[in-house]
Amino acid sequence: MQLFSFFSSSTAFRVRIALALKGADYEYQAVNLRAGEQHQQAFLDRNPSGNVPALVDGDFNLGQSLAILDYLDSRYPEPRLIPADTIQRARVLELVNVIACDIHPVNNLRVQLYLKNILGVTEAQKNAWYRHWVAQGLDVVERLLARQEDTPYCFGTHPTLADCCLAPQVWSAARAGCDIAAYPRIDRIYRHCMAQPAFIQAAPEQQADAPQGG
Amino acid sequence: MQLFSFFSSSTAFRVRIALALKGADYEYQAVNLRAGEQHQQAFLDRNPSGNVPALVDGDFNLGQSLAILDYLDSRYPEPRLIPADTIQRARVLELVNVIACDIHPVNNLRVQLYLKNILGVTEAQKNAWYRHWVAQGLDVVERLLARQEDTPYCFGTHPTLADCCLAPQVWSAARAGCDIAAYPRIDRIYRHCMAQPAFIQAAPEQQADAPQGG
Repeated sequence: MQLFSFFSSSTAFRVRIALALKGADYEYQAVNLRAGEQHQQAFLDRNPSGNVPALVDGDFNLGQSLAILDYLDSRYPEPRLIPADTIQRARVLELVNVIACDIHPVNNLRVQLYLKNILGVTEAQKNAWYRHWVAQGLDVVERLLARQEDTPYCFGTHPTLADCCLAPQVWSAARAGCDIAAYPRIDRIYRHCMAQPAFIQAAPEQQADAPQGG
Repeated sequence: MQLFSFFSSSTAFRVRIALALKGADYEYQAVNLRAGEQHQQAFLDRNPSGNVPALVDGDFNLGQSLAILDYLDSRYPEPRLIPADTIQRARVLELVNVIACDIHPVNNLRVQLYLKNILGVTEAQKNAWYRHWVAQGLDVVERLLARQEDTPYCFGTHPTLADCCLAPQVWSAARAGCDIAAYPRIDRIYRHCMAQPAFIQAAPEQQADAPQGG
């Protein structure tokens, strides 16, 4: 199995966590998003979405991180990351989609480039935009988490897809200077996750294409 | 069951199609997004995401359209909208996520309002933004569809979650003046879908909160 990834991509980070939790072997293929390698024809032929992550499993090519995560949960059922129970599953997917639809897409690289290059917004306006959507989205996540008792991971004592998505989003937001301490449950779950071997192994700074010295 | 919806919301439209395909009975609760009703505290208490659709099933409240669609597919298994087969399922979810993550979130109401009210972009710039992300996303969808033989729906002779997401996105894009004929497979699948009873029943213009006369 090959994973096409970029060290600091939060969507690739999601998939790396799942692969690490499942102990699945894979070959890391770096795609330098800053150099535009995702737009090369050979890459697009394999992955029409033109972004990372992309998974190659034999002759099967798959793009879109949430589709890849669902595929991996079916292909490597242990440990299960998407609960089988209808209600538990719904709760996990609700939180996942706040991150995957309401926070990440509005702030990813291609949107930031459009704001800067086409609309000509200032660096300060771009940063305010980023922080606005992070704050709005993490506020929703915090309220979703507060509906239940406090647990080490988002939903209980074992990681789920929610943790695979939350940790990379918080990592990116913290790196961009957002105040994570304003969200006590998120902050605690994030710290717990990032102390676990699978999350450490999947972290951006541990990847082959990460700049030396962080 | 109650569905909190707004007639022209493409994410609520997704869920209405699934409910119609499954023949599930529900009560329609209109939330006027243009009047900001999604920000009222009583609504937020039920649905922290603060948007539509939201589903209430007994004492269970659920937000996020993709989580709701997965829940409905578990709660009302016939007809199945997310295939059980690992590969087929992955293909459906890949296409769904191009729409749900790469097209819709960047163009929804709250983003358009931020562009206009905070960044002060012109109407022409806002329309160019909308068309840019639709064109980029539909181009990916068209290429994903072109990898397989031509079928009435996105994946075969029966509707899946892919059709539940594609039809509303195309409806919105066409309404905003995007050229759908530029994507022949999408155009043909969209026309096929919108001629089916479940899609007609779920269409924006058929909802109780749609303006009279369209």
